[in-house]
Amino acid sequence: MSNPVFITLEGGEGSGKSTQIKRLSQELDARGIDHIMTREPGGCQSALDIRKLLVEGDPDRWDGLSELLLYNAARHEHLRRVIRPALREGKWVLCDRFSDSTIVYQSLARGIPRDVAEYITMLIVQGTMPDVTLLLDIDPTEGLKRAKGPRLGFNEDRFEKESLEFHQKLRQGFLDMAKEQPQRFRMIDAFQSEEAVHEDIITALGDKLLRGTAA
Amino acid sequence: MSNPVFITLEGGEGSGKSTQIKRLSQELDARGIDHIMTREPGGCQSALDIRKLLVEGDPDRWDGLSELLLYNAARHEHLRRVIRPALREGKWVLCDRFSDSTIVYQSLARGIPRDVAEYITMLIVQGTMPDVTLLLDIDPTEGLKRAKGPRLGFNEDRFEKESLEFHQKLRQGFLDMAKEQPQRFRMIDAFQSEEAVHEDIITALGDKLLRGTAA
Repeated sequence: MSNPVFITLEGGEGSGKSTQIKRLSQELDARGIDHIMTREPGGCQSALDIRKLLVEGDPDRWDGLSELLLYNAARHEHLRRVIRPALREGKWVLCDRFSDSTIVYQSLARGIPRDVAEYITMLIVQGTMPDVTLLLDIDPTEGLKRAKGPRLGFNEDRFEKESLEFHQKLRQGFLDMAKEQPQRFRMIDAFQSEEAVHEDIITALGDKLLRGTAA
Repeated sequence: MSNPVFITLEGGEGSGKSTQIKRLSQELDARGIDHIMTREPGGCQSALDIRKLLVEGDPDRWDGLSELLLYNAARHEHLRRVIRPALREGKWVLCDRFSDSTIVYQSLARGIPRDVAEYITMLIVQGTMPDVTLLLDIDPTEGLKRAKGPRLGFNEDRFEKESLEFHQKLRQGFLDMAKEQPQRFRMIDAFQSEEAVHEDIITALGDKLLRGTAA
């Protein structure tokens, strides 16, 4: 058996992460690659309880430091209850948002010192860094337009209420991070059609997918 | 006006903290010392929302690292919304449990490395360390007996379900901490009668109370 691969999807609002993670999951199914599909904040009941605190209410309910701690508490639960057990069982893990989102949001958009955001996030992630991070990059003007479609579930529009400038800072933060860690990041142009984005993702994973399929 | 004093009360279950903080508050009222009385985790709505996650449910709902982050997120909200504004207005602050509880619980009883527990807690506390910490010390065998009386409010007995050994570790942790920081800590024998404990607290604060009253 080849090693399971931990893949995260990152990107701003309306970049199509939730659509693309489902298509990627179908692709893995078709290739017989055992995997789980999950997302942050969430993935297990205790993390969902924290998620509920984070996504509901006014934009100023929490400041950056509280958010940093809450996101990482939810991540710790997700890692110890879901992600690490799956990887130990040889399953691939597809995760919608992970540590990069927290570091980018808190340090570049909320004014938390970068070393503080990284220290706490890395303390929680420890050895479980993603093998591949797919960055679905899109101009926030377009992304926010796409994100305005109807949504299911409880009110999660707290972040969508933030200003365009905020979303532009986030985009730049992700782009800078991808430049700093080119081995882990795969840049995907998310402005394209759903089909074209999916194909780019398959191409970006090419090598790993072939090994997974052959296993 | 003399500087406001930030006083925390620490100690195990059944050590009488909530009774003694009320008596101390009455004493300050009688002396005309403007103050607030608060407690952790809690003190404001956002911190109470986190408190609810922490005190309800099974003892194994969270592990030490999650607890460390959640307690400190609640503390950060409490500090920025309640404690720091009160001190800026010249009010004394009486707080039932604070940073010492977190460091002792997580590092000595939950197995979190002490430097990690201290780094995160001090990151949140920053310059707002208590001026005086009253350690209400009692043998856990007696304390747990006293704590078994009827309680109001939602189910908060998660910690009381822990073993006696756990509570003994906590007690030792508080005693060691008091030895390390003798300037800040005042040891109070909480095995005594309510009245005797109150008198010891007034004696322990003597100097500061006189200055507060004279202000």
